[in-house]
Amino acid sequence: MTTALNGELHGISLIAGSVPSSGGASFHGFNPSNGRPLDPAYTSASIADVESAVAAAADAFDSFANIAGSKRAMFLRAIADGIDASAAELIERANLETALPIPRLTGEVARTSSQLRLFAGVLDEGSWVTARIETADPTRTPPKPDLRSMLRPLGPVVVFGASNFPLAFSVAGGDTASAFAAGNPVIVKAHPAHPGTSELVGNIISHAAKQAGLPGGVFSLLFDSGHQVGAALVQHPEVKAVAFTGSFRGGRALMDLAAQREVPIPVYAEMGSTNPVFILPRALAERGEALAKGLHGSFILGGGQFCTKPGLVFASEAPPFLNALRASVVSSPAFSLLTEGIATIFSKSVEDRGSMQTAKGTAAGEGFSAQVSLLETDGASFLADHSLAEEVFGPTTLLIHCTGLDQMLHAARNLGGHLTATVLGTDQDLADSADLLRILETKVGRVIFNAFPTGVEVNHAMVHGGPYPATSDGRSTSVGSQAIFRFTRPVSYQGLPQTALHPALQDSNPLGILRLWNGAWQMTSP
Amino acid sequence: MTTALNGELHGISLIAGSVPSSGGASFHGFNPSNGRPLDPAYTSASIADVESAVAAAADAFDSFANIAGSKRAMFLRAIADGIDASAAELIERANLETALPIPRLTGEVARTSSQLRLFAGVLDEGSWVTARIETADPTRTPPKPDLRSMLRPLGPVVVFGASNFPLAFSVAGGDTASAFAAGNPVIVKAHPAHPGTSELVGNIISHAAKQAGLPGGVFSLLFDSGHQVGAALVQHPEVKAVAFTGSFRGGRALMDLAAQREVPIPVYAEMGSTNPVFILPRALAERGEALAKGLHGSFILGGGQFCTKPGLVFASEAPPFLNALRASVVSSPAFSLLTEGIATIFSKSVEDRGSMQTAKGTAAGEGFSAQVSLLETDGASFLADHSLAEEVFGPTTLLIHCTGLDQMLHAARNLGGHLTATVLGTDQDLADSADLLRILETKVGRVIFNAFPTGVEVNHAMVHGGPYPATSDGRSTSVGSQAIFRFTRPVSYQGLPQTALHPALQDSNPLGILRLWNGAWQMTSP
Repeated sequence: MTTALNGELHGISLIAGSVPSSGGASFHGFNPSNGRPLDPAYTSASIADVESAVAAAADAFDSFANIAGSKRAMFLRAIADGIDASAAELIERANLETALPIPRLTGEVARTSSQLRLFAGVLDEGSWVTARIETADPTRTPPKPDLRSMLRPLGPVVVFGASNFPLAFSVAGGDTASAFAAGNPVIVKAHPAHPGTSELVGNIISHAAKQAGLPGGVFSLLFDSGHQVGAALVQHPEVKAVAFTGSFRGGRALMDLAAQREVPIPVYAEMGSTNPVFILPRALAERGEALAKGLHGSFILGGGQFCTKPGLVFASEAPPFLNALRASVVSSPAFSLLTEGIATIFSKSVEDRGSMQTAKGTAAGEGFSAQVSLLETDGASFLADHSLAEEVFGPTTLLIHCTGLDQMLHAARNLGGHLTATVLGTDQDLADSADLLRILETKVGRVIFNAFPTGVEVNHAMVHGGPYPATSDGRSTSVGSQAIFRFTRPVSYQGLPQTALHPALQDSNPLGILRLWNGAWQMTSP
Repeated sequence: MTTALNGELHGISLIAGSVPSSGGASFHGFNPSNGRPLDPAYTSASIADVESAVAAAADAFDSFANIAGSKRAMFLRAIADGIDASAAELIERANLETALPIPRLTGEVARTSSQLRLFAGVLDEGSWVTARIETADPTRTPPKPDLRSMLRPLGPVVVFGASNFPLAFSVAGGDTASAFAAGNPVIVKAHPAHPGTSELVGNIISHAAKQAGLPGGVFSLLFDSGHQVGAALVQHPEVKAVAFTGSFRGGRALMDLAAQREVPIPVYAEMGSTNPVFILPRALAERGEALAKGLHGSFILGGGQFCTKPGLVFASEAPPFLNALRASVVSSPAFSLLTEGIATIFSKSVEDRGSMQTAKGTAAGEGFSAQVSLLETDGASFLADHSLAEEVFGPTTLLIHCTGLDQMLHAARNLGGHLTATVLGTDQDLADSADLLRILETKVGRVIFNAFPTGVEVNHAMVHGGPYPATSDGRSTSVGSQAIFRFTRPVSYQGLPQTALHPALQDSNPLGILRLWNGAWQMTSP
């Protein structure tokens, strides 16, 4: 029940750089490998703590929104540097709290710091503000006014840490990085499954804010094992937006709370996705065994706890593919899942679908362990039962034996919203099924050809989003540089003197950014 | 009760280019000048009509979304040409139905067709799709995939026509133009106050769609004097977004309906705005009379029925300004308002604030007539009564006598969301009140210096939006080219062969558009 880091963890929320004097019930993280609680105990934040954190964030907004982008870039890089410098202890603690393997967590640390640096680069480049300038024309009838628009931050943003990425989708993850980048103070509600990792990262952010001379209110970290703190944050009048990654039920509850406010606010919730995969006939015939191995590697990755895990696979029956897939499953080790709740729901869900199970891996062991499972059904049965399209979080996938391309297209047309859809095929397959891509692009945020969906690049072209219920808002992405746009709104300035304008909008283009100048894209001043 | 156009109007909804056989209760437009009903009678659409219109729109989506942008541009220009060619009859009918003066309606026709052409230009230029390309790097560990993203349309969009702009915010207004531009079929729920104008414009759109060889389902026009058709449209599973301009109550009702759907959808509702004006001391002293005349012209424009009417004016007491403003009001004619309901609510609202009335214009006459009214109060009373910040639609404004700049700043900090905020001042005034602009930009979509808010430019830099309750979604604009982004979502394509990619994403950049290529903005192929 003790860890090497115990002395450094305090188990208390962090509000604008200070620790609160009040607090609620206490809770523990758990070691999923053995199911035992981890020290220290964590004190849930109180409603008074929520008030303090939000008030500090609201106070910090004006100053944080109006510092130069380059200053915010330095802040993001300082957080990234802090994370890299603490990699060893972050990985140790995260491994203890999540049972995710060290190599995976090593990669996740690198991803987390590189995400922060990606946004720092976006700020240094500067064009993200989307400056649009229309100069005055006093000779026009009526006279044309000078009008300039750019994106501005929203205000305090609440970020809910996700269980399955204790670093990259948590305290200093993509939501926090993109909200900071746009100039918004952030209040993180830590995920209770990795409180120690959260506290370590929270300290890094607080330290970076202090070093950068930012007001403490730009960042707070609140702990809570229940729902009270999250609900109070989402309902607080000074909170302007919410980002969440988690279950469908949790995401929808936050959406409903936000929509019912006197002043509704946007919620960017990434919820459930089953990430359909379509294996086309020629590819299935030509490389069925390789596809089976690739698919298996993808759906068990991280214990099947990726948002982009391929959970539905549509293919015609082909023995080489089928035999290879079943054999891979049979030889799969068991996985420790993130929490007791996730492990319980996983077992229950697989049990409910027990009649479809055709192969299983090594039996589950101690702690929050799960047995890999392959489920199979036929196209008609799948189409008749909507519940089969729902996400089962953990190491299982559902293979749907289709009678042919027509049935696959029919299934594609009936899909709900997902993060990704994957097509595995030859170029000829693609030509033979031209409609498939056009159908799929209306259902998902990312269409993948001949790769597996579990690799999520963090760059300028990634869309990690998709229509409801994959996310609350299919007009957005939570990964990649376009995530910054979620926390912005355009503002026009009419007739302002040059000295009163943001540098992004001044005639001389002191920031040297791309701008739309009287309808023409320009990188320099005209 | 008859008009010269009577023979051309059928009083029936238009569904995918055809008229429905079913229908509900009938209603009439009215002539606001005399309060009398206008022929013909209009038949409300039935729920079966809603089903037909939405089904046709859903069917048309794939084809409309995937034609070249240049084809959609031709469609928009054909509508614009049709509107210009029918200007005389549109103006005659709109004048009959709204009592808006001929010169104003003449301008509105020009604005409506130029809006359509603005979006045609956006399509021809093509960069609006926001193409972002990251090319593969097989040498990286792990290998970097080819990833490309662009904006895609959402699907069928429902547009509610507004009462106060029978052309520019109605059947072929900015919402319809921007939704079409992005590739979305549109179903318009006509505003019942100008059904004849709506039918004429609907016919122009239907004709243009037919000429362009588009599926009929790209456009339908439904009549209803009640709320049944609108509610059914917003709740229909195949509808993907909603645009509305009207009252706060109406907009919020649509927001709530959309948020409570099994699959929530975005609602872009422009609702109420009081458009605060701050007159700073030096300008007030130097040009008080001129400011009074300008303000008067702005708040009575169109009978005070502009969304951007300045309804709150903050200033210190200055006799020249005050006397000029009161004198202008006393010499104001009465105005016919758009509907009996608007006229009734206006009279009631002014009556409720009767103790604040300091000047009034010519008494109201027949029909839906309204008397111009000036209301005045002091800063402390204003700050103590939240209801005074609410919009009163019609020719009145509330002048708030402030004790000085501090009270103005206090009032600014307490503002809700508005479309615009205006500062009238000298450069020295601006320097003396630096905080004011920074406060105001967090409250509105457009900050104006030394002009009045009622002129709304339609161009690339306009933001006609603002935080709730001015709109449902402060991250958007309903006027100008940026309105197109409301009806889009980003989609990533990973590993697709060149031939399967949209031209916007192909290596050779056949559309010659601006793209973000491996992080660098480029207009040509690399």
